[in-house]
Amino acid sequence: MDILYEGKAKRLYATAHPSELRMEFKDDATAFNGLKHEVFAGKGRINKSITLTLFSFLEAAGIPTHLLRDEDETRLIVRKIEIIPIEFVVRNVVAGSLAQRTGWAEGTALPEPLVEFYYKNDALGDPMLAPDHIRVMGLANAEEVDRIRSLCLRINQLLMGFMQDAGFRLIDFKLEFGRDGERQNQIVLADEISPDTCRIHDLATDEILDKDRFRRDLGGVMEGYQRILEAIRNHAAQR
Amino acid sequence: MDILYEGKAKRLYATAHPSELRMEFKDDATAFNGLKHEVFAGKGRINKSITLTLFSFLEAAGIPTHLLRDEDETRLIVRKIEIIPIEFVVRNVVAGSLAQRTGWAEGTALPEPLVEFYYKNDALGDPMLAPDHIRVMGLANAEEVDRIRSLCLRINQLLMGFMQDAGFRLIDFKLEFGRDGERQNQIVLADEISPDTCRIHDLATDEILDKDRFRRDLGGVMEGYQRILEAIRNHAAQR
Repeated sequence: MDILYEGKAKRLYATAHPSELRMEFKDDATAFNGLKHEVFAGKGRINKSITLTLFSFLEAAGIPTHLLRDEDETRLIVRKIEIIPIEFVVRNVVAGSLAQRTGWAEGTALPEPLVEFYYKNDALGDPMLAPDHIRVMGLANAEEVDRIRSLCLRINQLLMGFMQDAGFRLIDFKLEFGRDGERQNQIVLADEISPDTCRIHDLATDEILDKDRFRRDLGGVMEGYQRILEAIRNHAAQR
Repeated sequence: MDILYEGKAKRLYATAHPSELRMEFKDDATAFNGLKHEVFAGKGRINKSITLTLFSFLEAAGIPTHLLRDEDETRLIVRKIEIIPIEFVVRNVVAGSLAQRTGWAEGTALPEPLVEFYYKNDALGDPMLAPDHIRVMGLANAEEVDRIRSLCLRINQLLMGFMQDAGFRLIDFKLEFGRDGERQNQIVLADEISPDTCRIHDLATDEILDKDRFRRDLGGVMEGYQRILEAIRNHAAQR
């Protein structure tokens, strides 16, 4: 079927059903706005499984998501929704750009979680936005921003607990949301949650297990992803 | 008396009165986080007079400020307050970093004004903050941020009208606020309002009259500042 959208790490295809899409996870990894690129055999399969596990967990906990069902090794069937072009970043510990922004050392635990907004726009380099920009640019209305911020904090609570019980520390993660036209434009969680979109450390050793292994040339990228997959699968099965 | 603080364009001195400071406007102009520097004879005098005129106008319109009284050619006497280390930028028209952030062309009128927050920290390059950063970093509490945002929008209304009546278009401007310990930590407008801290264009011709003349090497910097001073003084005298 037709490719509707191809991003750096996923492809979206039309299906026979007009309100359903097929979301395919690629093996490609990119960083620094596409300047760094590498293919990791098996990444698509692992990230699909992690996303399936975490979205199923969040749905069961009352978070509306775009997930409909599993399809095959690298693909999920998801609702066709209107994506809001904002990346919502939830942070529990200082890392990456937050260290530059605050002057606080990487690894500093935040006194409370915070939510950042970035404009999903590669040409502009995904700049940070304040709520005022989002409203004035017409990307989302104030009610939607409030709703999404609340969902981000609730998802953070759920994921922090889940990850901790599975042996990991959730440093930060990126979420995307959309409007579901078939459900009165309800806000639903979309995209993926995987080591590509989260910072996840070993709870005991603080070892980096996520895409920072690729960004920082630490090696063993797929070993980290695979460890996360196995642990969260086991934890989900025990729940 | 002792210099308590020296910035790029001003010095603050202690006075004989513990709750009063002397604020001196320098002739130095800097841009690009201090990389560009030039001295313009008379700038301190002009900016002091513009600040005095605009702060007096705002005080009379009900905005609490740190201004107490005029002192001499380049100096004002102001209340000693605790400055909040945030630059509040109010924008009516796209210019500067907002063009890069939104992808909108410079000169585009915004559908409504917006307020941005920047961390006053030269070493970090004055990064943009979202309200969540301000709260988590402990720079100001949520009530203070709301209060300052309201003050920013009210000041914008007042200054837009004033500037338009004086023959100018107010593109954007930067404000600073502080807590007045002698008035129950009331939030008061502080610092300056001048062509160093505003973008101001001629209403009819859109000619740039502010510090962008210096940033962009357009020449006639002091001529622009002097035109603004004369027009707003005349307008203030007529009111």
